[in-house]
Amino acid sequence: MFPINTWYVACTADEIDEKPLGRTICNHPIAFYRAQGGKVAAVEDFCPHRGAPLSLGQVCEGKLVCGYHGLEMGCDGKTVSMPGQRVGGFPAIRSFPVEERYGFVWVWPGEKDKADPALIPQMEWHNNPEWAYGGGLYHVKADYRLMVDNLMDLTHETYVHSTSIGQKEIDETPCKTTVNGDEVMTSRFMSDIPAPPFWKAALRAKGLADDVPVDRWQICRFTPPSHVIIEVGVAHAGHGGYDAPAEHKVYSKVIDFITPETDTSMHYFWGMARKFNPADKALTAQIREGQGKIFSEDLEMLERQQRNIGTHPGRKLLMLNIDAGGVQSRKVIDRVIAAEKGAAE
Amino acid sequence: MFPINTWYVACTADEIDEKPLGRTICNHPIAFYRAQGGKVAAVEDFCPHRGAPLSLGQVCEGKLVCGYHGLEMGCDGKTVSMPGQRVGGFPAIRSFPVEERYGFVWVWPGEKDKADPALIPQMEWHNNPEWAYGGGLYHVKADYRLMVDNLMDLTHETYVHSTSIGQKEIDETPCKTTVNGDEVMTSRFMSDIPAPPFWKAALRAKGLADDVPVDRWQICRFTPPSHVIIEVGVAHAGHGGYDAPAEHKVYSKVIDFITPETDTSMHYFWGMARKFNPADKALTAQIREGQGKIFSEDLEMLERQQRNIGTHPGRKLLMLNIDAGGVQSRKVIDRVIAAEKGAAE
Amino acid sequence: MFPINTWYVACTADEIDEKPLGRTICNHPIAFYRAQGGKVAAVEDFCPHRGAPLSLGQVCEGKLVCGYHGLEMGCDGKTVSMPGQRVGGFPAIRSFPVEERYGFVWVWPGEKDKADPALIPQMEWHNNPEWAYGGGLYHVKADYRLMVDNLMDLTHETYVHSTSIGQKEIDETPCKTTVNGDEVMTSRFMSDIPAPPFWKAALRAKGLADDVPVDRWQICRFTPPSHVIIEVGVAHAGHGGYDAPAEHKVYSKVIDFITPETDTSMHYFWGMARKFNPADKALTAQIREGQGKIFSEDLEMLERQQRNIGTHPGRKLLMLNIDAGGVQSRKVIDRVIAAEKGAAE
Repeated sequence: MFPINTWYVACTADEIDEKPLGRTICNHPIAFYRAQGGKVAAVEDFCPHRGAPLSLGQVCEGKLVCGYHGLEMGCDGKTVSMPGQRVGGFPAIRSFPVEERYGFVWVWPGEKDKADPALIPQMEWHNNPEWAYGGGLYHVKADYRLMVDNLMDLTHETYVHSTSIGQKEIDETPCKTTVNGDEVMTSRFMSDIPAPPFWKAALRAKGLADDVPVDRWQICRFTPPSHVIIEVGVAHAGHGGYDAPAEHKVYSKVIDFITPETDTSMHYFWGMARKFNPADKALTAQIREGQGKIFSEDLEMLERQQRNIGTHPGRKLLMLNIDAGGVQSRKVIDRVIAAEKGAAE
Repeated sequence: MFPINTWYVACTADEIDEKPLGRTICNHPIAFYRAQGGKVAAVEDFCPHRGAPLSLGQVCEGKLVCGYHGLEMGCDGKTVSMPGQRVGGFPAIRSFPVEERYGFVWVWPGEKDKADPALIPQMEWHNNPEWAYGGGLYHVKADYRLMVDNLMDLTHETYVHSTSIGQKEIDETPCKTTVNGDEVMTSRFMSDIPAPPFWKAALRAKGLADDVPVDRWQICRFTPPSHVIIEVGVAHAGHGGYDAPAEHKVYSKVIDFITPETDTSMHYFWGMARKFNPADKALTAQIREGQGKIFSEDLEMLERQQRNIGTHPGRKLLMLNIDAGGVQSRKVIDRVIAAEKGAAE
Repeated sequence: MFPINTWYVACTADEIDEKPLGRTICNHPIAFYRAQGGKVAAVEDFCPHRGAPLSLGQVCEGKLVCGYHGLEMGCDGKTVSMPGQRVGGFPAIRSFPVEERYGFVWVWPGEKDKADPALIPQMEWHNNPEWAYGGGLYHVKADYRLMVDNLMDLTHETYVHSTSIGQKEIDETPCKTTVNGDEVMTSRFMSDIPAPPFWKAALRAKGLADDVPVDRWQICRFTPPSHVIIEVGVAHAGHGGYDAPAEHKVYSKVIDFITPETDTSMHYFWGMARKFNPADKALTAQIREGQGKIFSEDLEMLERQQRNIGTHPGRKLLMLNIDAGGVQSRKVIDRVIAAEKGAAE
């Protein structure tokens, strides 16, 4: 139920250090580690000798050594050596294309020869002095598409996040959804409204008044397999809203990389890239903490929604105008999966 | 494996306050809440919009509002409104008849048009100045009928509750079981015996000697679907036992409302209505604590019994004379279920 | 997947005291208790009355009394008595042959009439003033044969136990495996090497220098159903190694009794019988603690290996020369099981 010939975020770069990292991606248990020169490698988390998980092993000078009997596994899934053994006839295990980019490790769970690093999406904010980034990771026991739905319909902010970013004006302002090839965009522009607590704090951090009316925008963009980037921000009212000059607004991108773990669980990498006060590390930490708290409010809802849907598999859900973002994103996902299957046959 | 056209206790009145309560009754996940005027309502715990559990939502001025996207659900399972939406075509969800009585909320999980509040059993002790009541709730991972068996055969007190209400004389005194329509009664009268610790304390609370021989009685009454009310007490010997004048005895009713959660788990509402020192609130609290401790002694036994039975589904259990209360109660249950099925066909 | 006409260690003698012990052996839930005179008895953990687990009951003067309604069960699985009941027609439950020996309780889960106590293996170290013994019990969620594999291939010490008993010389020294009837022996002799930390401490405990080269040996012996006894030790180099006189060496037996709980879990009784400083109880405690810590290092590996194998049931594992001990042991196990099946048909 997910595309496989595509790049997913597997972990943040700092999750792999001297020890390998074991993580299941799209139903594949994978051992990630840093091979020689620090380059990330990914192989099936299954030692061909006796089935031990390679992620319980060690990395010695860039070599992944099984922690049970010392088999040394190569980046390509072929055994390099084992004490006292000739390894030529050992069966190979799967290896997975991986790339490190933007502070994340990206993995390609499908056909290896189609893995083109150029397909990893561009992130303008990375290594850009005008931007600062902070984020985190949540494990959620729900189908990854429920998170896509969640992020492509921000009316839920009014209810789930009522004390931070929610406000009734979101609910009251229609959104507009468009599809452009594989990209789905759903946007909402609110004019002359009070800023909710999160944005008041952002305005203050930039030295702007927080008690005046603002224009607020939310522009959600889905791209396959399951990335959602959301332009968010507020500008003092009357200066052009989204197009206002930088000195009148605070502007960020919510970054969401959603990686299926299994059919009913996901790794959710969330973060915020902001285009104001980029050098203020305390502000980065403060926003990260606040965002982490806000985004944690969704988890119980999604996990319970998953259980409810699992209990009533035949029941059809509604597809309202506010759901258009999620509905269209799912159509793109279905099309990508169908295309993969067609190409395979 | 349970009657459905009947009233079950779903919760105590104070479990539903400003927030809805989500609880599964007879395999139905249900959201309970207080609608306008404080009247309790019960609807399927499934928002027709996207399947979120309504019990995670809010109640605003008697309206149940989904905590995900603000759909407002009516008591009748029909959507009342949703911001920016026309809801006329939204599919209805189930609603369940509910009544609040005796400090409990009663729910009818079966056919709505058969739900007659007059079928809720009478409780003489409620709002009666001669009586005081205290009780609690246990969740037990066992078929609700194992609790019926337990309460309709009090010889287990000798073993499970040996330090409080058990005594060898229970085991040594035969019980008598009679069936009168749908009511099963099993009774035991013990004469001229020492009082066990629980009853010694009750005698002292009433200012009666606790070191003299007593007559003791246990009269268990089962009524469908799964209520067991037990008259219990002791009187100083030689004053007429069960029929002794009030000044020579302490007398209570053990109240047991047993509600199936699933086929192998239950909500067990236990309590004691007592007809002595009714104004003594400290005594009520003390008895409630003592009873809670005693009744908790049954839980591991029942859960382990359930697991044993689940492991050996084909094995037949014995039906001894002491089991007659449970056996007859199960016959009534089976008859009620068969009648429901017959009526449905 | 395990022999049943054989003796398994069920528990240590001190695990059964005044209360019965409930433990599942080879998929049979069993209640163990001390009958009259302290002799251990074992019956199915299922009261024939209502299916309660007998292990939740009491032992009164050597009689096992069900904790629910007082049924008294005999050692032979026949009900002895029950208050107010004639028990002649009660169905019998299974009883299991049990023997107490070497501080362990041994149980025979198969055909009763084949249970010959003489088949319990001899343990020379028990009640022998030249030896001291200490050990413990781990519950492991893995097929018991994974532990046999583990113990019959000690190259894993280099990786799993690198800070205590592991050293690269184990990996570098070939082992030799021989089969003699049902006994499988795999041995390794290392000459003129440094002692690893565990053996340094043992040398010091005996007053021997720990900074001189030693000869080290490991002689693993598997016997059915799943016992592994390992002779281990070091001698100062140049004195004859394994055959060196006692004053130049420290010498122990690692004792492993591996009992299947279910098809994918086991009770692992580990210990060490040592033939030096036998009267030093502080040393016994210290070795027991050290060994417990070392052996706990295997648990995560085996449980994760079990999960990996369960995920890929069709995948064949390698059988290298170092695996010969485990491979041959499994062949013996398969042969014993096949013989049991043949005899049964």
